Amino acid sequence: MVKQERAARTRRSLIHAAAEVFAQTGFVPASLGAISARAGVSNGALHFHFANKGMLAEAVEAEATEAVRRLTEAARARHGDSLQTVVDAMHALIGALAEDVVVRAGFELAGDIARRTASPLRREWQHWVEDSLRRAEHAGALAEGVSWKDAARVVVAVGVGLEVLGGEDATWLSRQSVTRIWDLLLPLLTDRPDLGAPVSSGSRAAAVVPPRAQPRLTQPEQR
Amino acid sequence: MVKQERAARTRRSLIHAAAEVFAQTGFVPASLGAISARAGVSNGALHFHFANKGMLAEAVEAEATEAVRRLTEAARARHGDSLQTVVDAMHALIGALAEDVVVRAGFELAGDIARRTASPLRREWQHWVEDSLRRAEHAGALAEGVSWKDAARVVVAVGVGLEVLGGEDATWLSRQSVTRIWDLLLPLLTDRPDLGAPVSSGSRAAAVVPPRAQPRLTQPEQR
Repeated sequence: MVKQERAARTRRSLIHAAAEVFAQTGFVPASLGAISARAGVSNGALHFHFANKGMLAEAVEAEATEAVRRLTEAARARHGDSLQTVVDAMHALIGALAEDVVVRAGFELAGDIARRTASPLRREWQHWVEDSLRRAEHAGALAEGVSWKDAARVVVAVGVGLEVLGGEDATWLSRQSVTRIWDLLLPLLTDRPDLGAPVSSGSRAAAVVPPRAQPRLTQPEQR
Repeated sequence: MVKQERAARTRRSLIHAAAEVFAQTGFVPASLGAISARAGVSNGALHFHFANKGMLAEAVEAEATEAVRRLTEAARARHGDSLQTVVDAMHALIGALAEDVVVRAGFELAGDIARRTASPLRREWQHWVEDSLRRAEHAGALAEGVSWKDAARVVVAVGVGLEVLGGEDATWLSRQSVTRIWDLLLPLLTDRPDLGAPVSSGSRAAAVVPPRAQPRLTQPEQR
């Protein structure tokens, strides 16, 4: 039992270390040696958990996908089919990109042209936004003459733009930056203050990011 | 003289072939052999023009930067400090991303984390949008209460989002997609129809992309 716990902890440390190395160097140049050293485990232990670099990248993406799913579900649970759901989820996603290296690396791996994968994370985010805005339209929460498709096109493009720009300059990921964007977009998307005007800074609960088990790391290399 | 012309043509062919290979595989996995083969020249000829892959990438970026500069300057020459300048430039940029592999590769190289460069193309686009919206605000073309900074944040994020999403799915880069986005954004940015309401589909002239010398290529490999 203790052995299993230790194995699970090593696995989490390796995923976290891999995310740091991938986010720092990109997928192709990342070396397994750098990842095991950063996780503080032997190469043998790394190979016990992951046969190759591709499997490590998949594990990072899977964990990032899970984190995005948790934060979108949390936003919907709080605000149902209102626009506030999308506002809160966007705040939570951009906050996770700024603070959680696994989410950041998950998106960057998904966009790494050298891996030629289908970028599941961006697609998942896109589908969730489309679905949420379709629900909002159905609930009468969108302004007259605004279709969920047009609203989703702008919201998805803005989200991906912030993700990419934020990889180079973190000020794009600040809460204030996201709030200013919603300040501009919300009056355009909704004309129904009687339904309770959405709050561009996110509802209070949006600030609370659902927890994820964080591995305790020994970090032989510092960035 | 004939020799110089031939050298210039070979150089252009190499830049175009390099753009195709970079756009297809990313920077790190791209091989010089694949590039010279695609350009239909020997490895020796490649090395005569470019000492290494990094210099080829820089040449692609330089040519893409030049193309972006031409299209932004053309938009400003036509429409001065109006919002139409930004609308037309965005149409021209997204059109170039869809149709010109050098521009597409230039942006992808700039965003390639493995190269760790400062992404001059995205930054240049960002500064141009900021400058243009500052001029529009000064000219009274922005709606009451909308600052150029807030407008630029949304326009820049949307543009980068379209660029990245369009790398995977070209429908994001269609003229119709960009027009629908401006349909949504323009009423928000301007309330001065007396100044001549901007046209979301771009002014007529926007469809004409400034020409660039295209190399005639022998293409031993087809994508």
